[in-house]
Amino acid sequence: MGTTGRRVGRPRADQRADSGLPAREELLAAAAELFTTSGYAATTTRAVAERAGMRQATMYHYFTGKEELLAELLESTVAPSLALARRLLADHEASAESRLWELCRSDVELLCGGRHNLGGLYLLPEVRAERFAGFHRVRTELKEAYGQLLAATSPGAALDKDGLALRTDLVFGLIESVILIHRSDPDRPVAAFAEATADAALRIAGVPWE
Amino acid sequence: MGTTGRRVGRPRADQRADSGLPAREELLAAAAELFTTSGYAATTTRAVAERAGMRQATMYHYFTGKEELLAELLESTVAPSLALARRLLADHEASAESRLWELCRSDVELLCGGRHNLGGLYLLPEVRAERFAGFHRVRTELKEAYGQLLAATSPGAALDKDGLALRTDLVFGLIESVILIHRSDPDRPVAAFAEATADAALRIAGVPWE
Repeated sequence: MGTTGRRVGRPRADQRADSGLPAREELLAAAAELFTTSGYAATTTRAVAERAGMRQATMYHYFTGKEELLAELLESTVAPSLALARRLLADHEASAESRLWELCRSDVELLCGGRHNLGGLYLLPEVRAERFAGFHRVRTELKEAYGQLLAATSPGAALDKDGLALRTDLVFGLIESVILIHRSDPDRPVAAFAEATADAALRIAGVPWE
Repeated sequence: MGTTGRRVGRPRADQRADSGLPAREELLAAAAELFTTSGYAATTTRAVAERAGMRQATMYHYFTGKEELLAELLESTVAPSLALARRLLADHEASAESRLWELCRSDVELLCGGRHNLGGLYLLPEVRAERFAGFHRVRTELKEAYGQLLAATSPGAALDKDGLALRTDLVFGLIESVILIHRSDPDRPVAAFAEATADAALRIAGVPWE
């Protein structure tokens, strides 16, 4: 059985000496890099394991395969925003407008903040598959939370069901569009861009803002 | 040399009997379908030729390979909008606001109107390559045209260079985000959605609208 000859993983160790990351995180980071630079279809599990400095067999100790790596990376682009959205929905102190603004701002920071543009993976044909139902469910719940915050604003309260669904799509669409903007200009400072996008989202929502 | 055994192309014929499309269009339609459903990396030129009902050798009569097919499909998602943008920029009768609205509306119709969601191909890692410089150039020119129309509106005229660039990114981002929205909900009627997106774009632009 061949090894890479260079860095070989230690099946029982949970910590990699060189990066300090747990092996699981190391594998996810390697997959994120390879999926976004070489492409998902062109990346083998062997390449992911090698990039993470371990044997392929060791990788299978942590992940069942390439699909599970992709599923976990996709979920990492939506799960933190859904958790924030739930906290904001439960917060009855702040106005709906300012909570919606904060969700937008934070979501843009998440989508643009990582080293790799994982949002770009949303459009892979493979992601339609049942295997990624978890990601689709979390993304749908996140969009529903945007809709609930929108409905709680005064312009949102005046909309009918279809009008609210359309406006939710447009706001959520603007937030996800930062994936494309970020790809064209990855060196843009994220914090100011996230605030400007949240401002624009509230203008779409019909809320007087700025 | 193997053939598919079923439908075999006629190298000298320019017209396919079954679809009535010229062979070149037939190949582009086949590539659009396969690239967006099976994925670009997983699609072979042989599969494209077979889907179009012709031999692989016949395909090479029209296209140098998979990359040229992808390049042409990508350009078809931006070139018509750039042509419209140039006509609108030269039209000094209509207001900048209404010309910007029309560009947005028409661009959304183009991005959502085809049978296949070609915009989804923007995010392929392969598309970064020099081979696709033509697409990137047309897309950049289209974005610049959005910026020029924005600068001609009264809120746009009040912005400094960086402010205008950011607002252009957000408007252009919203328009391209329909790629993601369309993917989630491909059966939505396009015309009303295109108008609603153009309305939202003008709200981002700071133009009182509706």
